[in-house]
Order: sequence, then C-alpha cells, then structure tokens
Amino acid sequence: MELWYTEYQTKNLGLTARIKATLYTGQSEFQEVAVVDSYQFGRMLVLDGVFQTSIFDEFIYHEMIAHVPLFAHPNPQTVLVIGGGDGGTIREVVKHQSVEVAEMVEIDGLVVDVSKKYLPEISVALNENHPKLRLKIGDGIKHMQEVENKYDVIIVDCSDPIGPGEGLFSHAFYQDVYKALKPDGLFVQQTESPFYHQELIKRLKQDIASLFPVTRLYLANIPQYPSGLHCFTIGSKQYDPVTADIARIPENFGTRYHNREIQKSCFALPNFVQELVK
Amino acid sequence: MELWYTEYQTKNLGLTARIKATLYTGQSEFQEVAVVDSYQFGRMLVLDGVFQTSIFDEFIYHEMIAHVPLFAHPNPQTVLVIGGGDGGTIREVVKHQSVEVAEMVEIDGLVVDVSKKYLPEISVALNENHPKLRLKIGDGIKHMQEVENKYDVIIVDCSDPIGPGEGLFSHAFYQDVYKALKPDGLFVQQTESPFYHQELIKRLKQDIASLFPVTRLYLANIPQYPSGLHCFTIGSKQYDPVTADIARIPENFGTRYHNREIQKSCFALPNFVQELVK
Repeated sequence: MELWYTEYQTKNLGLTARIKATLYTGQSEFQEVAVVDSYQFGRMLVLDGVFQTSIFDEFIYHEMIAHVPLFAHPNPQTVLVIGGGDGGTIREVVKHQSVEVAEMVEIDGLVVDVSKKYLPEISVALNENHPKLRLKIGDGIKHMQEVENKYDVIIVDCSDPIGPGEGLFSHAFYQDVYKALKPDGLFVQQTESPFYHQELIKRLKQDIASLFPVTRLYLANIPQYPSGLHCFTIGSKQYDPVTADIARIPENFGTRYHNREIQKSCFALPNFVQELVK
Repeated sequence: MELWYTEYQTKNLGLTARIKATLYTGQSEFQEVAVVDSYQFGRMLVLDGVFQTSIFDEFIYHEMIAHVPLFAHPNPQTVLVIGGGDGGTIREVVKHQSVEVAEMVEIDGLVVDVSKKYLPEISVALNENHPKLRLKIGDGIKHMQEVENKYDVIIVDCSDPIGPGEGLFSHAFYQDVYKALKPDGLFVQQTESPFYHQELIKRLKQDIASLFPVTRLYLANIPQYPSGLHCFTIGSKQYDPVTADIARIPENFGTRYHNREIQKSCFALPNFVQELVK
C-alpha cells in the first residue's frame, strides 16, 4: 500500500510526496505538529498540514535566512531569532564568530521538543544547548514589545501568515522590530513565494520601507516550498546588504548552498519580481 | 466535480494541478500530445504526461534558454533551435537584432500544429511565419549530422531524456553539434533539475567538457518543472558566458524574467551545484 501526502500550496496546486511512515502527530496549544518520513525529502516537519522543513533541503532555507543578513552586518554580536523552533536557523547563527549571544523566542515548545527528538541534524544547537544560545519559549510579538536598542540582527523565521505566525506580518510588529534593533541593526523575514504570494510581498515591502531606510528582497531555491522559489525581505537601518563586503565570508564556511557569489547574486531579481517591490 | 492531474516528477513526488478542461489530446508518431487548461498555470502543453510549458511561466524557460547564450555571443547571426515545437524559444531568438536566420528543426509536426492552435501567445513567431524563421519538421539528430561550420548559436530545446528527446543527450550528438558550429560558436541545452537529476547533469557536463573548451551551467526558477529549479548547460568553442559584456543587453528588451543582472547572476551556483560540475 502506497501512502501519499498532498500539501495544497494554493487552492489549485498541490505537492504530493510518497510517505514511508508517520513518526509523530500531536496537538499543541497553537497547531497540529507532525513529523513524517518521506522518500523524496526524508524526515519532514509538518505544521497544520504545511511542510515546514525537511532533511533533504533544510540547509537552503536555514543558510539563506541566517547568513545573508549576518554577512550584511559588519559585526553582528547580539542576534535574535523569532520562531525557528526546529533549531536550523540557530544552528547557522552560532557559526558566526562575531556572534556572542543568539537568543531564540519560539512560541510553541512542542515544536522544539519534537524537533529535538526527530530532527536532530537540524536541532543540533538546541540538543547541545550551545553556549551562545538563549532559548525562551514564549510569544515573539510580546518579547519584541519589551526590548529596545538591543539586537544587531533579528531573524523572523516564521511559518505562513495564517495561524500562530499571523501577527509577525503586521505593521505594528515591524515598529517593535525597529525599536528592538540597535541604531545600525537590520532584520530579515521569510516572505513566501514571488510567484504565488505577490500581494503579501508588495504589502510587506511597503510596510517595511515605511520604517526602514533600506529594504531589499532576496531569493533562494527551496524545492519543498510553493513554486520552488522563496523570498526573504530585509529591513535595515543603515547597511545596504547589496554592497556588503563578500570578502569577509570565509572560503570554507561549511555551507552547502550559501557562498560569496550567492550572497551577491541572491539580490538579482527577475523583472517580474522587481515589479513587485519597486 | 474537481479534476486534478498529477505529474509524477520523480517516483516519490508529484505536482498536482486542478484542471478546468482538457482542450486537446492526440497521438503522434512520437508521443501523446495534450493541452489542458489549469487554474494555476493556465493552458499547458503536456507530452507523454509530462508538463512542458504553460501560459503562466513559459516566459522564464524561453527567455533563459534563448537570451543567455545569445548575449554570451558577441554577434549571433545564424541560430538553430532543435526541438522547441511550441515556438516559445524562436519567439525570443528573433527579437535579437543581429540574428538574420533562425532555423528550427522539430521532430513532431503535431506539437507545432497544436501549439499554433491552442498556445498562440507562445507560438506567435510560427503563426506569423516570422521572416527570420526557417522551420523544418524533421529529425534534429540527422540534421546535425548533415551540417558543418554553419551556426553561431545552437539551442537544444528538448524534452526529457526519455522518448523522442533521448538521442539529444548523447556524446555522438554533441560531436555533431561541435562540427555544426562555427569556430567561435556555442550551444546550450536544457539539462533538468540540479536537485533531482544529478547523475545526468554530471555525465552531460563531462561529455560536453570533453569536446568544448568552455562549459558553464546556469540556473532559472521554473515553478512547473521538478523542484522549481532548472539548469542549462553551455558548451562554447571560444567565448566564456560568465564574462559576457552585459552592457550590450538593451535596457528595455521586453522580457519579464531576464535582464542584465540575471544574465550574470544565473551563473552563480550554490555549493551543492558546484560540486556536481567541478
């Protein structure tokens, strides 16, 4: 008997993956949490039925959401990750020598627990309780309201703008992010697919540009996400990521996707994407 | 009643699209030819059950397979397209002022006829019988054996390496391509997904590098193709596409994906892709 799970990426399109086994299902206060083992992608974290990350391609999302903003800042020391309960983003953040403190605020403790058990390759920094890590289970929106002038880089590693992630895509949240950043700080957020979420991307770009003098969109190829093309939006108080000094990126940083050329080329936008954010 | 069509991109992964209507199905000497109208991608050409092109995203494939090699050559005048029966590649080729003759050799006349009727936005240069176009219905492999020192650029716009396209992925074919090119000529071929077709890409790169002094891989994001990331391989007798003069690319070339920055950035490869072709 073949088992297939279909994620409906839009109401008219699905990605269907052959499943070896369901390793875990549970319900937290916030969402349904599942881990399945798939033939194509290996083990996958699934929240409310939506693929979040997989052993096969997680390196792309996690490297690109972490290294692009961190190498856009000349000396990131204090970094905050909002969300990112699987630990993949924190795993990449702590690789940066300049980083002294890597805080993480994840709303759903069950995601952390399940990732530590079923996705140890991804959650390694959580399992090891890495010395730079400060993990807090709590509401990222509330945390952001309470801090001021603290972070060099904030990484909003959230799920889709429905469910627990919804408030992380609001103007009020971006105001708090601005306040929580140091005077030369910058932040990044995953902002979905330039093919299927164009209205969202336009709105976020306008929201962020109304607060931050520098806003930039960049791209990465992530096969398990809708359309395979994913974008990230940076809001920066001072540094322009496009002119970052790529010579600072170590030649052998242990990455499988990111490198010096990708740090630059990810900001090159096809015409139809330029149209969205101009 | 909802109709869905699933293309199995690998044996463990499918893309499933909600279908409005089947507009055409027929059987040629070579393959099953179908046109469906889908909600997500609009009208789609389907050959032997595999999505070939769609109104929604065809511009990406056709712009990238045509403009990247044509702008890598300083003065392409005589161009050959092998395959490309839907006409999308020829539509882009004839936009280049330097191009005087755009030959096209497509094996399956039914693909041309069906595209002219159901995909006129794509087949426009065929429908208009563009003055630069020389269309021949015939075997591209045989055509290549018969010509010598003729073309500036050859574009191999083929389907997957099974079925009628199979012989276009062979060492013998690349030898004929080399012979058919002028002494400073170059060719390009679509070479599938860097995520799901790694062995194929490695083998083709080696085959092409054994004949051509310059070989380069480049990338484009095509949501309807497996993994959403597609690659193209260039074999060149003289010019290195990476150092092409992008200032020659007109600012307003009427493209929706390709532009000066993309012409450069498409050659920036993630580490895992560099590994495949080193």
